[in-house]
Amino acid sequence: MSDRIHASYWLETSDSPARAAEVIAGEQSSGTFLALANETPELKERSGARVEKLEIIDVADRPSLPGRYEAGARFTRCHLELSWPVDNMGHSLPNVLATVAGNLFELQCVSGLRITGLELPESFARHCPGPAFGIQGTRRLAGVPSGPLIGTIIKPSVGMNPAQTAAEARKLIQGGIDFIKDDELQADGPHCPFDERVVAVMREVKDAEQRLGRKVMVAFNLTGELDEMKHRHDLVLSQGGTCVMVSLNAVGLSGLRELRRHSALPIHAHRGGWGSLSRCPALGWDYAPWHKIWRLAGADHLHVNGLGNKFSESDEEVGRSARAVLKPLWPDVPMAAMPVFSSGQTGLVAASTYAATQGSADLIFAAGGGIFGHPGGVASGVAALRSAWDAAIAGIALTQQAQQCPELQQALGFW
Amino acid sequence: MSDRIHASYWLETSDSPARAAEVIAGEQSSGTFLALANETPELKERSGARVEKLEIIDVADRPSLPGRYEAGARFTRCHLELSWPVDNMGHSLPNVLATVAGNLFELQCVSGLRITGLELPESFARHCPGPAFGIQGTRRLAGVPSGPLIGTIIKPSVGMNPAQTAAEARKLIQGGIDFIKDDELQADGPHCPFDERVVAVMREVKDAEQRLGRKVMVAFNLTGELDEMKHRHDLVLSQGGTCVMVSLNAVGLSGLRELRRHSALPIHAHRGGWGSLSRCPALGWDYAPWHKIWRLAGADHLHVNGLGNKFSESDEEVGRSARAVLKPLWPDVPMAAMPVFSSGQTGLVAASTYAATQGSADLIFAAGGGIFGHPGGVASGVAALRSAWDAAIAGIALTQQAQQCPELQQALGFW
Repeated sequence: MSDRIHASYWLETSDSPARAAEVIAGEQSSGTFLALANETPELKERSGARVEKLEIIDVADRPSLPGRYEAGARFTRCHLELSWPVDNMGHSLPNVLATVAGNLFELQCVSGLRITGLELPESFARHCPGPAFGIQGTRRLAGVPSGPLIGTIIKPSVGMNPAQTAAEARKLIQGGIDFIKDDELQADGPHCPFDERVVAVMREVKDAEQRLGRKVMVAFNLTGELDEMKHRHDLVLSQGGTCVMVSLNAVGLSGLRELRRHSALPIHAHRGGWGSLSRCPALGWDYAPWHKIWRLAGADHLHVNGLGNKFSESDEEVGRSARAVLKPLWPDVPMAAMPVFSSGQTGLVAASTYAATQGSADLIFAAGGGIFGHPGGVASGVAALRSAWDAAIAGIALTQQAQQCPELQQALGFW
Repeated sequence: MSDRIHASYWLETSDSPARAAEVIAGEQSSGTFLALANETPELKERSGARVEKLEIIDVADRPSLPGRYEAGARFTRCHLELSWPVDNMGHSLPNVLATVAGNLFELQCVSGLRITGLELPESFARHCPGPAFGIQGTRRLAGVPSGPLIGTIIKPSVGMNPAQTAAEARKLIQGGIDFIKDDELQADGPHCPFDERVVAVMREVKDAEQRLGRKVMVAFNLTGELDEMKHRHDLVLSQGGTCVMVSLNAVGLSGLRELRRHSALPIHAHRGGWGSLSRCPALGWDYAPWHKIWRLAGADHLHVNGLGNKFSESDEEVGRSARAVLKPLWPDVPMAAMPVFSSGQTGLVAASTYAATQGSADLIFAAGGGIFGHPGGVASGVAALRSAWDAAIAGIALTQQAQQCPELQQALGFW
């Protein structure tokens, strides 16, 4: 790997692909719409972005995105890879973002542009913190040495007061859950103040600690202004909590980075709003390059949706996202983070999820109805999920596993 | 205005619009995919999002966005307005964002969703700083009491060292420019360190100050980590600078908010990456609701592209964006910000720009080729632009105005 930043794109253009690639490279480095006297060959050699790869895929009659195109224009799709010298922006994630995802989506020759890859030289590892806890730190704090962390989300998302929230948490803790998270809509509204909620919920966690021999991990959603987030983090820590949660798109990169700097706890990163960045196939981001920025900035857990989810993402996309989160960033500096599966999850997808992660159970598996719907109650729901995962890891069919596990047997009826 | 947050959407759905609206409202408040025992009628009444408006536009045979739809599904487009009680998230911009733009874009029934409006109760004015300088503060610091601030961007964007950058600035200052900005690709790379650049450029600004009777405003791009941004701001201030610039999408909402809290200078807000949020008509954001979040958080200047720009945005969109930035947020608390026009700007669009702002010249008008291309040099280019704006404001045709202004006469030949 050179000392250059590489970004890959799916590009659709009304221009000749080679010219479009040069326009994008120029616009995002030393060029502009006009020839510049100061843009000497030396300057361009030193600071210009380089077209590293340009492979034509196909040609379409209609543009993917509306724009100002010449009559009769045709639209060529291609794989484009650009590179920039690190000297242009230094080892600065916000400025990497401003470079690889700046004013290029709206260029007139662009009828579609999506970031499909991002590779940074290993020198970034010295300048970016990465996850402080990652997989091993999370397992240690949660007291779950192997297998997935079985988790859930407090519901209803909003509307309950702290005492009601704590009562829900108690049910879940008594049911043997490993991980609980706030909904991303629940932060610090007047009806359920953060501080009171944390105190009430942590009382339940600590009450159960001795009996369980471990502390259930609760990701408290501290999303807010920076000073609020720091205060909230400190409160969670002082109450013996082991995780904080933040909505990445709501606070942005500076917010995560400062939280990481301040935090003594794993950061559970929610991706709410992700659809707005990804759902148009001809625009925005693939998850692999997008998550990398946040992981480098310090996210320990990263949401990836779930197989068979209730949203519009395909299982293939979910699997790709999860593998991206688990893939080492560099051979010597993996900065591993933990993928979080959620949305309509049950034991039925344990085996396919395990296959999608290529045999990794270093993940959080959050289910709602898959637990609460169990006729035997929360404890049976959790036991059934765990048993389904044991079967997935051992390569045993669920129906066979169910013969040893009555909770799983019952669960197969409603999942 | 009630004590509720209102968000408007363009929605396309494969479901019945009424059911889709309820699903979205539920998902973003107290509901979920499953009926919940705890979601009592009282809780729903208190905390649920409400469907305020649902107007069907038309029906399409094909979805705007790919997804998992039933065979033969039809796709209804509608205007949807939802509201939430402020008590759900408090007066917290990040949590407003997590609510109105969270996990709703990817819902399975959604084949298109775009945020078209956002109205917050006036109580937010007590919790959000808004621009510290806005129009009047910017005019005072720049010494430009009326008319647009005529500006430009240092080019090449990257590749010049601090001394070369200062030499460019000198040319512009001697040419009579009001406003200069860094390119968003130029922050603090090793080849052009921020601190050295500021010192060198500010020397030129101060050298010219006595002669001009005013300080040319330079927006230095301090985009970076928070501690870096604060340090850089302090340096600009200590050198007598009057403006800082930040890339909103690179630092995020926490970054802008903390910068606003720290800053004693106007904040010039760059929207690089905006295309990724807006170019698919069936997804993402309109500019009016999007810019409002940043303006409430403290942006003084907000980029809106330019009429006849080199990008793909239409003149209608640009005009709408500019009017949104100038529109008071509330009758008693306008929190006015200054729109920044740029990209291929010349005096030819002065009159249409003035019409698009409905007769406001409270704006920054940044030109590159429109200035540098003038055969008489930078000073003539600036004079021609100023004269074109004088004509626009007075309602005089450019050809007539050019009879009094030889620089404009010459400019009309090359614009």
